[in-house]
Amino acid sequence: MSAKIRVTVWNEFRHEKKNEAVRKIYPNGMHVVIAEGLKKGGFDVKTATLDEPEHGITDDVLNNTDVMTWWGHVAHGDVRDDIVKKVQKRVLEGMGLIVLHSGHFSKIFKTLMGTNCSLKWREAAEKERLWNIAPNHPITEGLGEYVELPNTEMYGERFDIPTPDEIIFISWFEGGEVFRSGVTFNRGNGKVFYFRPGHETYPIYHNPQVIKIISNACKWAAPRSFIKDECPNAKPLETISSKNVDFGKAGVLQNN
Amino acid sequence: MSAKIRVTVWNEFRHEKKNEAVRKIYPNGMHVVIAEGLKKGGFDVKTATLDEPEHGITDDVLNNTDVMTWWGHVAHGDVRDDIVKKVQKRVLEGMGLIVLHSGHFSKIFKTLMGTNCSLKWREAAEKERLWNIAPNHPITEGLGEYVELPNTEMYGERFDIPTPDEIIFISWFEGGEVFRSGVTFNRGNGKVFYFRPGHETYPIYHNPQVIKIISNACKWAAPRSFIKDECPNAKPLETISSKNVDFGKAGVLQNN
Amino acid sequence: MSAKIRVTVWNEFRHEKKNEAVRKIYPNGMHVVIAEGLKKGGFDVKTATLDEPEHGITDDVLNNTDVMTWWGHVAHGDVRDDIVKKVQKRVLEGMGLIVLHSGHFSKIFKTLMGTNCSLKWREAAEKERLWNIAPNHPITEGLGEYVELPNTEMYGERFDIPTPDEIIFISWFEGGEVFRSGVTFNRGNGKVFYFRPGHETYPIYHNPQVIKIISNACKWAAPRSFIKDECPNAKPLETISSKNVDFGKAGVLQNN
Amino acid sequence: MSAKIRVTVWNEFRHEKKNEAVRKIYPNGMHVVIAEGLKKGGFDVKTATLDEPEHGITDDVLNNTDVMTWWGHVAHGDVRDDIVKKVQKRVLEGMGLIVLHSGHFSKIFKTLMGTNCSLKWREAAEKERLWNIAPNHPITEGLGEYVELPNTEMYGERFDIPTPDEIIFISWFEGGEVFRSGVTFNRGNGKVFYFRPGHETYPIYHNPQVIKIISNACKWAAPRSFIKDECPNAKPLETISSKNVDFGKAGVLQNN
Repeated sequence: MSAKIRVTVWNEFRHEKKNEAVRKIYPNGMHVVIAEGLKKGGFDVKTATLDEPEHGITDDVLNNTDVMTWWGHVAHGDVRDDIVKKVQKRVLEGMGLIVLHSGHFSKIFKTLMGTNCSLKWREAAEKERLWNIAPNHPITEGLGEYVELPNTEMYGERFDIPTPDEIIFISWFEGGEVFRSGVTFNRGNGKVFYFRPGHETYPIYHNPQVIKIISNACKWAAPRSFIKDECPNAKPLETISSKNVDFGKAGVLQNN
Repeated sequence: MSAKIRVTVWNEFRHEKKNEAVRKIYPNGMHVVIAEGLKKGGFDVKTATLDEPEHGITDDVLNNTDVMTWWGHVAHGDVRDDIVKKVQKRVLEGMGLIVLHSGHFSKIFKTLMGTNCSLKWREAAEKERLWNIAPNHPITEGLGEYVELPNTEMYGERFDIPTPDEIIFISWFEGGEVFRSGVTFNRGNGKVFYFRPGHETYPIYHNPQVIKIISNACKWAAPRSFIKDECPNAKPLETISSKNVDFGKAGVLQNN
Repeated sequence: MSAKIRVTVWNEFRHEKKNEAVRKIYPNGMHVVIAEGLKKGGFDVKTATLDEPEHGITDDVLNNTDVMTWWGHVAHGDVRDDIVKKVQKRVLEGMGLIVLHSGHFSKIFKTLMGTNCSLKWREAAEKERLWNIAPNHPITEGLGEYVELPNTEMYGERFDIPTPDEIIFISWFEGGEVFRSGVTFNRGNGKVFYFRPGHETYPIYHNPQVIKIISNACKWAAPRSFIKDECPNAKPLETISSKNVDFGKAGVLQNN
Repeated sequence: MSAKIRVTVWNEFRHEKKNEAVRKIYPNGMHVVIAEGLKKGGFDVKTATLDEPEHGITDDVLNNTDVMTWWGHVAHGDVRDDIVKKVQKRVLEGMGLIVLHSGHFSKIFKTLMGTNCSLKWREAAEKERLWNIAPNHPITEGLGEYVELPNTEMYGERFDIPTPDEIIFISWFEGGEVFRSGVTFNRGNGKVFYFRPGHETYPIYHNPQVIKIISNACKWAAPRSFIKDECPNAKPLETISSKNVDFGKAGVLQNN
C-alpha cells in the first residue's frame, strides 16, 4: 500500500453541465467539491468522470486506486458494461467502494448487490436526520448522535438491498419515511459503503459532516492488500483413505 | 399460492448424455432423481433442462414456479443472459432458488451474489461430514447433529460469497478443509439457499438425507406472495414545512 | 408438539390495578386483551402475572409453553432471579419469546441480550409509523408497507441491543426519532422477537394490526422441538494419529 | 485514549500452580506468556489473576484498560458476580474483550452472550487447522489461508452462541469436527472476540501466529472512546401536533 490512501472520486458530471441550478452549487462538478473535501483528510485524491475516455477509469487509474467513490444519476445506462466489470473485479480484489445517493441505481452497485436497489423517493427539500446507530464504528468517528440536513431529497424504505453487514445510519424524513442511510457490505476482499445523502440540487457535499463521513468511510474501506481471484484444484492437506468406489469412477473426469 | 408448492428442477443435463460413468448413476438425468425425491415431499414438481427451447424456462414455466432448484457445471456459459435476467427478476419478486453444488459458478448465482463465488476443489472421493449449525431452522427439520457423505468432491474455503443471512451447515472434509455448505440469502422478496453436496460422478442425489434437505429448503423458500419491483415517487405522509431554498430551486428538475 | 401452539401471555399487571387511566383501557389487565386477540389466531392461550405464586410461571406452565409473550414496566426488579433463569433455560431449549414494549428493560430480555437495552423515550401521544422492512418474513404476513399508530410513547435510537438477526420494522416518530421496532434474535434453540409498540396508557393492544403482528410472531417463534443443553466429551469420529507429545502430557489431566 | 492501547491480560492462574505438566509449559502462568507476546506488539500490557484482591480487577485497573483478554477454566464459579458486572459494564461502555479458549464458559462471556456457550470437547492432542474466512479483516492481518496447530484440545459444533457479527476462523479437527473458532460480537459500545485455541496442557500461547492473532484482535477491539449508558427522556426534535386523547390521559403518568 502507498503511504497515503489513493481515492478516485468518480462523477457522472452531466447535471452540472446542463442545469443552471446545479451549476450554481457545483460550478466545476460535484467531484471537485468532494475531492477537495477529501484532500483535507490526507488522502491522495484524483477524479474521473463519465465523458472522459474510458470514463476516466483506465487500467492504470484502477490499479492505483484504493478506494473509489461513485456518484451517478441520469446516465447510469451510459456507463460501459466492460468498465463496470473491471470496477467490480477491482472491488472483489480489495478496492473500497463508496456509493453515493442516486448511485443506488448505478450498474456497479446493482451488480455488487444482485438486487433491484429500488426505493421510494421525493424531491421536496424536506428535512432529514441521520441517526447514528453504530457509535463505535470507524465511519461515525467524530460524529454525535445524529446529523441533520435541512433540505434533502427523500429516499424511503423498503430499500431493496441484501441484508447489510452493518447498519451505520437510519434516516428520519420530515414527510414520514425512514431509510437505512448508511450501510456496509463485504464483497470479495473489498468493502462497500452506501451513503444516502447527496443530490444535484442541494449543496449536500458542501456540508462538513457529510464530507467527514465520506472521509471516514474511505479510511475504513481502504484495503491492506489486494487478492486475485482463484478457484484452485487443491492438493489434500491430510491423507485420504484409498477409495474403492465403482459408481462413476470418481476422479476420472477431465472436464471439471 | 397454489395448494401445492410448485417446484421446477433445472438441470444442465450434459454430463449424463456424454459420460458413461455419470449415466450409470443418473440414467435419465440428475433432475429426474431430484424430482422424484421431491415428489414424495408433496410438491408439484416439473423439470427443465438446458437444451430445451429457452432452457425449459419459458415465461409460462417461470410464472408458475414457486421454487427453482439449479444444477449446472460444464455449460454455465451456454445459459442465455436474457433468461438469467428473467430468473433473477422472478427471484427478486419472491421465487425461492436452491442452488446445488457446482451451481456456485452458475450465472444466476453469481448474479445474485455479486461476487466471484470461487472456492477450492478436489475430486478424491473423500468423506464429507456436514455439521448442523442451525438445529432450529426449517431446513434442518428431521436431521441430527450431522450428515455424512462417504464419497464427495471437496469444496474448501474461502468461499467467495457475501456474508450469508444464515449458516445452516459447515462441512468437514477428510483431506483437511472446511466449507460453509448450507447458506441462506435474502435477495429482494426471494430466498436463496446454496447447498454444497452433489456431483455428477457420485450418487449424492440418491441419498435420502440430501433429498430431505432439498425438500426442507423448498418448503422454506416458497414465497407467500410475489411482489413487483417499483421505485415510486412517493407523496409525503406528513406535512412538509414550506421551504424557501434558493440553491438549485429544489423540485424544479424534471429529469430525475 | 401439541396440535395447537401453546402461548403463555405474561403481564406484570400492576399499572392496571393502581391507575384509573390504565384501567379504563385494560379493565382486566393488558394480558387479557392480548390473550383474547391471540385466541382468534388459533393458539392455545394461557395467562400469567407477576403477583401470582412463582409469577404464574411454574415448572408445569413452562414445560407446557411453546411461546411466551412478556410485558413489564414498573416492577422489573420484582421478578425473581431464579424464575428468570428458568425462563432463559426454556428459551435456550426452544421456547419462543415475544418481548413487548417496556419489556426491553425486563430481566429476561437483558439476560438474553447481554446489553443494557437502553433507548430514548418520551410520552407525548405522538404518531408512530412502523415501516415493514421484511415483506417476505412470516412476521409481516398480512401487513402492507407500514402500520400507523396515532398515539404512542416514543422509543428512539440508539437502542442498545446486539446486532439483530433480522430487522422487521423500523419506526418513524412525529417528534423526529427512528427506532428498530421489530427485531429478531436466535438464542440457543429458541427464537426471540422484540416488538416495540404498546404502552399502559394507550390502547395499543386493542389495535388489530398489532395483534396480527404478535400472532404472526407466535407462529414464527414456535419451536418444532426442545433441545436440552449439553457439553459432551465427544469420541472422535475419525482416527487420530497417535501423538508423542511431551509437553504437559496431554490427556492426563482429570480436572477438565 | 492513551497513546498506547492498554491491555489487561487476565488469567485464572490455578492450573499452573497445581499441575506439574502445566507448569512445565507456563512456569509463571499463561498470562505472563501472553503478556510478553503482546508487549512486542507495542501495547501497554498489565496482568491480573483470580487470586489477587478483587481478582486484580479494581476500578482503577478497569478504568485504565482499553482491552482485556480472559482465560479461565476450572474456577469460573470463583469469579465474583459483582466483578463480572463491572467488567460487563466496562465492555458495554467500550472496552474490548478477547475471550480465550475455555473462557467460553466464563461468567463474563456467558453474560455477554445470553446463551449456554456449550460445545463438544475432547483432549486427544489432535491436529487443528484454522481456516481464514475473513482475509480482509484486521484480525487476520499477516496471516495466510490457514493456521495449523499440531496438538490441541478439540472444540466441536454446535457452539451455542448468538449469531456472530463476523466469522473470522473456522477450524477443522483431525477427529472429524468443525468449529467457529474466531468470532466477533458487538455488545453495547464494545467489541468482543472469542478465539478458540489455547489450553493449559498444550503450548498454544507460545505459538507466534496465535499471539499475532490475539495482538491483531487487541488492536481491532480498542475503542476510540467510552460511552456511559443512559436511557434519557428525550425532548422532541420536531413539533408534535397537540393531541386530544381521552384514553389514559397520555403524559399524565409520573411513574415511568
